[in-house]
Amino acid sequence: MNTSVKTPSRIQTAMQAIQHRIDVAPGSKLPSIRRLAELQGVSKSTIVEAYDRLVAEGAVEVKAGSGFFAPARVRPFRLAEPGLQLDRAVDPLWIMRQSLAGTDSSLRPGCGWLPDDWLPGDVMRRVTRSIMREGKTNVTAYGNPQGFAPLRDQLARRLNERDIAAEPDSILLTDSATRAIDLVCRFLLQPGDTVLVDDPCYFNFQPMMQAQRVNVVGIPFTPKGPDLEFFATACIEHRPKLYLTTAVLHNPTGINISLGTSHRLLKLAEEYDLILVEDSVYADLEERPSPGLAALDGFERVIQVGSFSKTLTAAMRCGFIATRSDWIEGLTDLALATGFGVSDLPAQVTYRLLTDGSYRHHLDGLRPRLARNMATTIEHLENLGLTLWARPDAGMFVWAELPDGLDSSQIAQRALERNLILAPGNVFSVTRSANHHLRFNVSQCGDKRMFDELAEVMKNK
Amino acid sequence: MNTSVKTPSRIQTAMQAIQHRIDVAPGSKLPSIRRLAELQGVSKSTIVEAYDRLVAEGAVEVKAGSGFFAPARVRPFRLAEPGLQLDRAVDPLWIMRQSLAGTDSSLRPGCGWLPDDWLPGDVMRRVTRSIMREGKTNVTAYGNPQGFAPLRDQLARRLNERDIAAEPDSILLTDSATRAIDLVCRFLLQPGDTVLVDDPCYFNFQPMMQAQRVNVVGIPFTPKGPDLEFFATACIEHRPKLYLTTAVLHNPTGINISLGTSHRLLKLAEEYDLILVEDSVYADLEERPSPGLAALDGFERVIQVGSFSKTLTAAMRCGFIATRSDWIEGLTDLALATGFGVSDLPAQVTYRLLTDGSYRHHLDGLRPRLARNMATTIEHLENLGLTLWARPDAGMFVWAELPDGLDSSQIAQRALERNLILAPGNVFSVTRSANHHLRFNVSQCGDKRMFDELAEVMKNK
Repeated sequence: MNTSVKTPSRIQTAMQAIQHRIDVAPGSKLPSIRRLAELQGVSKSTIVEAYDRLVAEGAVEVKAGSGFFAPARVRPFRLAEPGLQLDRAVDPLWIMRQSLAGTDSSLRPGCGWLPDDWLPGDVMRRVTRSIMREGKTNVTAYGNPQGFAPLRDQLARRLNERDIAAEPDSILLTDSATRAIDLVCRFLLQPGDTVLVDDPCYFNFQPMMQAQRVNVVGIPFTPKGPDLEFFATACIEHRPKLYLTTAVLHNPTGINISLGTSHRLLKLAEEYDLILVEDSVYADLEERPSPGLAALDGFERVIQVGSFSKTLTAAMRCGFIATRSDWIEGLTDLALATGFGVSDLPAQVTYRLLTDGSYRHHLDGLRPRLARNMATTIEHLENLGLTLWARPDAGMFVWAELPDGLDSSQIAQRALERNLILAPGNVFSVTRSANHHLRFNVSQCGDKRMFDELAEVMKNK
Repeated sequence: MNTSVKTPSRIQTAMQAIQHRIDVAPGSKLPSIRRLAELQGVSKSTIVEAYDRLVAEGAVEVKAGSGFFAPARVRPFRLAEPGLQLDRAVDPLWIMRQSLAGTDSSLRPGCGWLPDDWLPGDVMRRVTRSIMREGKTNVTAYGNPQGFAPLRDQLARRLNERDIAAEPDSILLTDSATRAIDLVCRFLLQPGDTVLVDDPCYFNFQPMMQAQRVNVVGIPFTPKGPDLEFFATACIEHRPKLYLTTAVLHNPTGINISLGTSHRLLKLAEEYDLILVEDSVYADLEERPSPGLAALDGFERVIQVGSFSKTLTAAMRCGFIATRSDWIEGLTDLALATGFGVSDLPAQVTYRLLTDGSYRHHLDGLRPRLARNMATTIEHLENLGLTLWARPDAGMFVWAELPDGLDSSQIAQRALERNLILAPGNVFSVTRSANHHLRFNVSQCGDKRMFDELAEVMKNK
């Protein structure tokens, strides 16, 4: 018998021997190729092959210059899928961190919020000072586990105005809409479940769902909403538990899901036993509020989440979940177990702004300002040769296609060198099929330099 | 062949037929016993047995008067384990909600925080007003994804003073210590992993771990810390990934894990590849700070979390994670994906209180006040015949055993009728083996009525 002959069974035997060491001593250095070949009485090439396969499987780690290692047992969770090796420029979290960490001189048409000087900072300061002068407001104690009751009252009223039958007791306050979606998903999903999202969708939906350890299926998004035929097929093929969307002023496309599509989505949800989660963070930017999904359904199959982080302040955050009243207790328990409730003060401040007319006044100024910027942004983009996907009625987003097959990830990469933060299409696409699109935030496009910079970046292929 | 003979295989066949209907039409009504017996050509008693078994397994739901139903596919997550049917009086979350929702007239020796009038409300108001008067502080924008940098600086300094080698970049701000632990667990654990906790431990650790879908193993807690022999055996038997504790001013027992035990815990953690997560929320209540676990280890295997919710304010919440710097990016990504960062303002206020001397001044008044209440509480409890488990050096908790084999869950139940909120031992015990103990918060025991009420409840067997 010639030990230098590689047979599959020898490689497998060597792999098993290595696997045994990994199980016994996670985190430890594994024997060298030479040493293991001696121990097993096989050729070094057999051991090389065994290690190669285990490295490919992720069962063995290579440290340059130090050899092979058994992975540590505790392996931190990474949101970026290994194998995928996303370019950081199209990694959803990267663009978010860029936008958050960028310097004051950055131009940020790619970011998802209003410029700071569009937000009512002086009003926030005045109202907070006024609350602080009153002796009776709570500044130290834990609040109600479900959140500051007067704000829940106020939120229910506001939803009622949109024909959404919410009650204060069927609302749970959270720190943010993101946290609201996270809670809802932890409440309704099991790891391994499938969730439907729009393709394209709000980019953070992807890492959010990764954090839930669920599978994500993208539904092609049309100017009327998700493609219903595709949606129905996905329900049959993937048996999803949940559909997550921004029905009003959709992110990134800026459009509303049409009433007809909403109605048919609800019928499909009933047919395939699906829950629809509707993120309403941009809804207040509409002059005449669209119904969204919850108005049709009355919380039978729809959960609405929202916040004021996009329209009022992101420094004192206040989000909510509006849902079936019989789910509130379970959701509240989960919120206590995973965050011990929310800060009371942001809710008190938000309540004050909602009731003293400040928020309404702010929105009344904000909407026409956005509309003006929307018009000029579209004009500038069309002059640069970009094609509008659809003309939004309101809000801050425009979704547009680059001319000449230009690659938006490359454009975004190059733009960064010029301190211009763009939002390339694939960041929003679970199938990475939007590589000629960019999302523009019209409120961040007031500075004409932005378009000059973009023109330069587009020229410089 | 007599169809009235029940054979296991017939029952199984019937169960399979029912299961098939469940898979095809979740949420639907299932055939009646009579109908299914006809369809299957078996006796009704076979079908009854099949349904009985499926109901016991939780695969079929019974609705009174309506028959059998396939469970809906979307089944909300419940923190209370079904089968267990905990009395709500010893359900950890119930007591927390009681404490949070109780009326002003309730006596709350069982709750886990200071009375509101022990907290520096006026200082909070003054400092917040002062921040609001300054034009440059952020009141509207998203903050740094890792949290307000000056506060991270300050936290690092404070940890350094305790010989803990933290740097601002190795700290991530969160909304609360609970949220900090939740993030750490989501980062390091997989569903199905095992976590060690003290028995007894902070009651919320149990629902927190349920929310992670991990197994929990309780380690008997001694006046020097966890029983090390038991700890080592559990490491071998259960291969845990993580140990979660309150090393300083332990909740509920009030003691510190001894230096020797801490050292040996760290050696065991190294031997069995374990991460130790140390919740330090009560640590500032010590006059001379104990080192805890992180001081010995320097974040090799220890993660420290903390917050100011217990010592300063729970209405503007601010917690943190201090850990290895190479884990910060992953944790920050996860915090963005599941909450989109934290509110900036609570961090700004906390920073101001830490740097202008207010916090130090508050603690200097708080500690002797707690010490006085500790002494009188212990005296009162011993007069009532309770036995102290160990005498804490500082902090707010006392862990004491009832006389005469009295059942603390029953006592807590009866106390509620008198508007007295107690913390029965089993709330803190994963093995439900602390049913003669109660946890007392000495800061909530200033009103002598509390002891009179307790005496009444103990008498009235």
